[in-house]
Amino acid sequence: MLNIIGIGLRGYKSITLEQLDAIKNSDIVYFETYTSISPENTFDYLRSITGKKLIKADRNTVESSNEIIKNALNSNVSFIVTGDALTATTHNELRLEAIKNGIDVKIFENASIFTAFPSRTGLFNYRFGPVISLPFIYENFFPLSVYDKIYKNYVNDFHTLILLDLKNGQTMEINEALDILIKMEEKRNGNIINYDTFIIAGFNIAREDEYIIAGHIKDVINKKISMSPASIILPAKLNDKEIEFVKIFCDNV
Amino acid sequence: MLNIIGIGLRGYKSITLEQLDAIKNSDIVYFETYTSISPENTFDYLRSITGKKLIKADRNTVESSNEIIKNALNSNVSFIVTGDALTATTHNELRLEAIKNGIDVKIFENASIFTAFPSRTGLFNYRFGPVISLPFIYENFFPLSVYDKIYKNYVNDFHTLILLDLKNGQTMEINEALDILIKMEEKRNGNIINYDTFIIAGFNIAREDEYIIAGHIKDVINKKISMSPASIILPAKLNDKEIEFVKIFCDNV
Repeated sequence: MLNIIGIGLRGYKSITLEQLDAIKNSDIVYFETYTSISPENTFDYLRSITGKKLIKADRNTVESSNEIIKNALNSNVSFIVTGDALTATTHNELRLEAIKNGIDVKIFENASIFTAFPSRTGLFNYRFGPVISLPFIYENFFPLSVYDKIYKNYVNDFHTLILLDLKNGQTMEINEALDILIKMEEKRNGNIINYDTFIIAGFNIAREDEYIIAGHIKDVINKKISMSPASIILPAKLNDKEIEFVKIFCDNV
Repeated sequence: MLNIIGIGLRGYKSITLEQLDAIKNSDIVYFETYTSISPENTFDYLRSITGKKLIKADRNTVESSNEIIKNALNSNVSFIVTGDALTATTHNELRLEAIKNGIDVKIFENASIFTAFPSRTGLFNYRFGPVISLPFIYENFFPLSVYDKIYKNYVNDFHTLILLDLKNGQTMEINEALDILIKMEEKRNGNIINYDTFIIAGFNIAREDEYIIAGHIKDVINKKISMSPASIILPAKLNDKEIEFVKIFCDNV
C-alpha cells in the first residue's frame, strides 16, 4: 500500500486531518526532498507530530523507485511531497510503477503553487496559460524552447506562471531568473521582455513571511531580493479588475 | 479580522491543522455554499469538530458583503470555501472589500480542482491552457465565447479543463455538458468536437467514490453517469507518456 501525500505549502501546518491519520498508520514514511522546498524544520516537526522515523527521498531514491516499491509490496508506506501530490510528473511515474506491481495507491492532494501564487496576486486564474519551468543555464545549455512557450502564452493574451529551478535546496534567485529571461529575449527577439516589462515576483508563498512584489523588471532587480522559494508571473495585459486587485494585494514598486 | 479558508475537496477531512486552529479561534464562521459543492454532511461535521455555529453564506451574502465586513471589523471571522480559498474571483472581491475597510485578512489555501483532476488523469500539468467554465444554456443565452476559448487551447496544442456550472447544489450532468459542447461545435464549425472526440470526465475528485472515465464522447454518453460534481478534460494530442498514464489511471472505454 502506497500513500502519495502532498502536504501543501506551509510544512506540517498544512497537513490535513486525513493525511495525518494516513501517516500515523504507516510503517515506513518517505519525505521527498528534490522537486520542491518545504519550510525549515518541516522534517523535524513531521517526525515529532507523527512519531515516525522519516526517510529522506532524494532524486535517485524516487527515480529508481525499487526500494519504495519493494517496501510498499509488504508494508503500509507513505511518500510525502511538498505542495500538491502529483504536479511533478515523477510522482505519477512512482504511482504507475506501484500500480504495475499490484500495489494499492492512495493520492492525497493539497495546495499547489500553481494556484496559490496566481490567486494571491489578484490576477484571474482562468487567464493563465501553461506553467513554465525556468532552468539554470550553462554555456552549452540554453533552452530557448522555454522562451518560445512564454511567447506563445503572451501572444495568446495569457498570463504565465514561471517556476524557478532548484539547486542545493534553494530556488534560483529572482535576479538570476530575470537576467536569463532578458538574455533569452536578446537571442530570440520576440519583443516581449525588457527592463520595462511589468512582472510579479512571489516569495515564500503561503508562509508567514510571504512577499509579493509587482513592478517593472528594472525596479524589482534593484530590490536585490534573495528569498527562496521564488517564482515569477509574466502577466498579459491586465484588465481593470486585475489592476485594482494588484494595486492592493501586491507591494507595487 | 477575516480568515478566508479553502477546505479542499474532501470536506472536513481535508482541513489543515492550521485551518482548524483558525476556525476554532473565530467568533463567527461563514460557510460558502454557491461557488462549489462540498461532500454531504461537511456542514454538520464542521460544526461538530469546531464547536462553532456555522452560518451558510449564499451568493447574495457574499456579493453584498456588508454583513461579513461589518462583523470582521470587530470580531474574528472565518469564511470557509470548498476547494482553494481564492480561485473564484468573488472571494478576492471580498478580500479587497475587507482590506479597504482596514480589516486584517489571512488566506489559507488548499487543494483545487484546477490541479487535482488534471494530475490524477496522468496528463502533464504544464500542457494545460486556461481553465474554462461551461454555463447552462438557454434559448437566449448561448455564449459561443466559451467555445472560442476551448478552440484557442486546442489550436495551441493545450489541454483544456472544463468546469461545469452549478444549479440547485449540483453541477451540470456530464451528458448535458457534452451535448452543449456538440451544439457549440455545430454553430461554430471549428472541427474540434464530435462524437468521436476523446475526452476525460471526472466525478467526485478526491472523494472515496472518485471516478475518472476516458473515451470517445459517444461511449461516455452511453454510460449515462449522473454523479456530481463532474468536470471534463478535452485533451490536446497525448504524448507517449500521457497515453501510458491515462491507460492505467483512468477507466478507459
